Amino acid sequence: MPSLDLAGWVSPKEEATGRPAAVHNRAMTLDDKMVAAYRRDGFLMLPPGTLPDGVLDDIRNAVPRVMDQEGPHRILERDGTTVRSVYGPHQTDPVLSKVVRLPVLVEAAKQLIGDDVYVHQSKINVKASFTGDQWEWHQDYINWLRADAIQRPDLVNVAVFLDEVNEFNGPLTFIPGSHRNGLLAGTDSDGMPVGYEDAPSWVSTLTANEKFQLDHAVIESEARRGGLVSAKGPAGSVLMFHANVLHASGPNLSPFRRAVLLLVYNGVGNAPLEVANPRPAFLAEREIAAL
Amino acid sequence: MPSLDLAGWVSPKEEATGRPAAVHNRAMTLDDKMVAAYRRDGFLMLPPGTLPDGVLDDIRNAVPRVMDQEGPHRILERDGTTVRSVYGPHQTDPVLSKVVRLPVLVEAAKQLIGDDVYVHQSKINVKASFTGDQWEWHQDYINWLRADAIQRPDLVNVAVFLDEVNEFNGPLTFIPGSHRNGLLAGTDSDGMPVGYEDAPSWVSTLTANEKFQLDHAVIESEARRGGLVSAKGPAGSVLMFHANVLHASGPNLSPFRRAVLLLVYNGVGNAPLEVANPRPAFLAEREIAAL
Repeated sequence: MPSLDLAGWVSPKEEATGRPAAVHNRAMTLDDKMVAAYRRDGFLMLPPGTLPDGVLDDIRNAVPRVMDQEGPHRILERDGTTVRSVYGPHQTDPVLSKVVRLPVLVEAAKQLIGDDVYVHQSKINVKASFTGDQWEWHQDYINWLRADAIQRPDLVNVAVFLDEVNEFNGPLTFIPGSHRNGLLAGTDSDGMPVGYEDAPSWVSTLTANEKFQLDHAVIESEARRGGLVSAKGPAGSVLMFHANVLHASGPNLSPFRRAVLLLVYNGVGNAPLEVANPRPAFLAEREIAAL
Repeated sequence: MPSLDLAGWVSPKEEATGRPAAVHNRAMTLDDKMVAAYRRDGFLMLPPGTLPDGVLDDIRNAVPRVMDQEGPHRILERDGTTVRSVYGPHQTDPVLSKVVRLPVLVEAAKQLIGDDVYVHQSKINVKASFTGDQWEWHQDYINWLRADAIQRPDLVNVAVFLDEVNEFNGPLTFIPGSHRNGLLAGTDSDGMPVGYEDAPSWVSTLTANEKFQLDHAVIESEARRGGLVSAKGPAGSVLMFHANVLHASGPNLSPFRRAVLLLVYNGVGNAPLEVANPRPAFLAEREIAAL
């Protein structure tokens, strides 16, 4: 259960200035239609205004300082200089630590999962102008099953658009309904992707080339059945999607950044089992505490 | 001037069966609004139905046999197996040799160029499902100036969509009006792009990484001024665009092919000058004959 002081959003700026906090206590409940759409399609778009006032600006302001922190949690593009992703920012940044506790997000995740929730993983995918690379077709859950021993695919991704997402900057693209048949057929690719040969093995799950390659025939068959849908919207939009829904995204061709904050909520009853070589905490939370 | 027998389209199938030829003698003239839009934006979309009946099917049927012919005119993707582009098909394939003479295309090119025209270059860009790679931001004319010594940028690209082009399969994306300031600032990249190190030097102008890299600041400035527009439409759509309009296209994320036939018409009065090392004829026509 959220604590009282986390039930409202107080931006760091307001705290610093001592001005009265703008308190949002809107524990959003998704309506039945929204829940049904999520169950049917595997994703659901919520418009800007879903987040309390000020939250988007505070997250956007956090991005540069989060991106500046070097370490293994920070993944670069193939060019070796542009930041591709930063993992675990909610574990280190005070603003993002509060964002994952926002009642509007926590309550929505609880509704879709049917359990109390915690954050299994967080990241910022920067998708820099011109250089932000694509993400191949994949289901998220296979990594969380194989690497983290999470037993059920009942995790919910919450993507907060930090910039406008449009057809030019690499929107997430889904095959509606593709989450309903569990893990789909594919094969493991050998070795590390080009440009990342010397990186730790878990890096292969975080680059442009997925370690586990879904069969093209399976993706084609799913696309013929369900079609393709891209999730576009203004900054501040919130996109929720299922751990098993097939998705991909193109590179950012445009001259403008397309950053997204991704939070993966999991049910406390679906916590990772023991594994021989657990991934770093910035990739897989193992200290479970309901939000 | 088109000869009488080229004024109508007779498909090879009709010729073979001896059935009465479906003759189209529609020498389309672009109306003033279309010409004005082309001058303003640098591109113009014509709907399916612009081409005579049967032409689209005949071109589509030609694609496999054109793609099968090995040789330096055939460029592969980075994977070394998927065909990326085939150059000069109008010089070798009987159907494509007739397509470039279609009055509807020739007359439109003549209107926009203001001269009798010939085909400087043709190609089929296959953009295969899943693997078709991106084309970086570029202006076409710089290669035709530098490599072929064509003195003015008054060439017109005619792109015939052989498949539906949509937001998922890498549509051509333009910055409207970016053709109006001539060649924009950029720098030459050193060496050959990754995966093409052993290829002839002219290959570097034909791969995913442009040899001449436009300054990102220039592209951003142009995009802020003119915005971004992607050219999407059903198979059979015909897209005309200026040799200097800034364009790019993303990879084909989708499970479906996105092939385009590209014809570059040039004015007979703008023929290439002599150069020390002329490119192969499949890249740059030097025997000029008005269509």
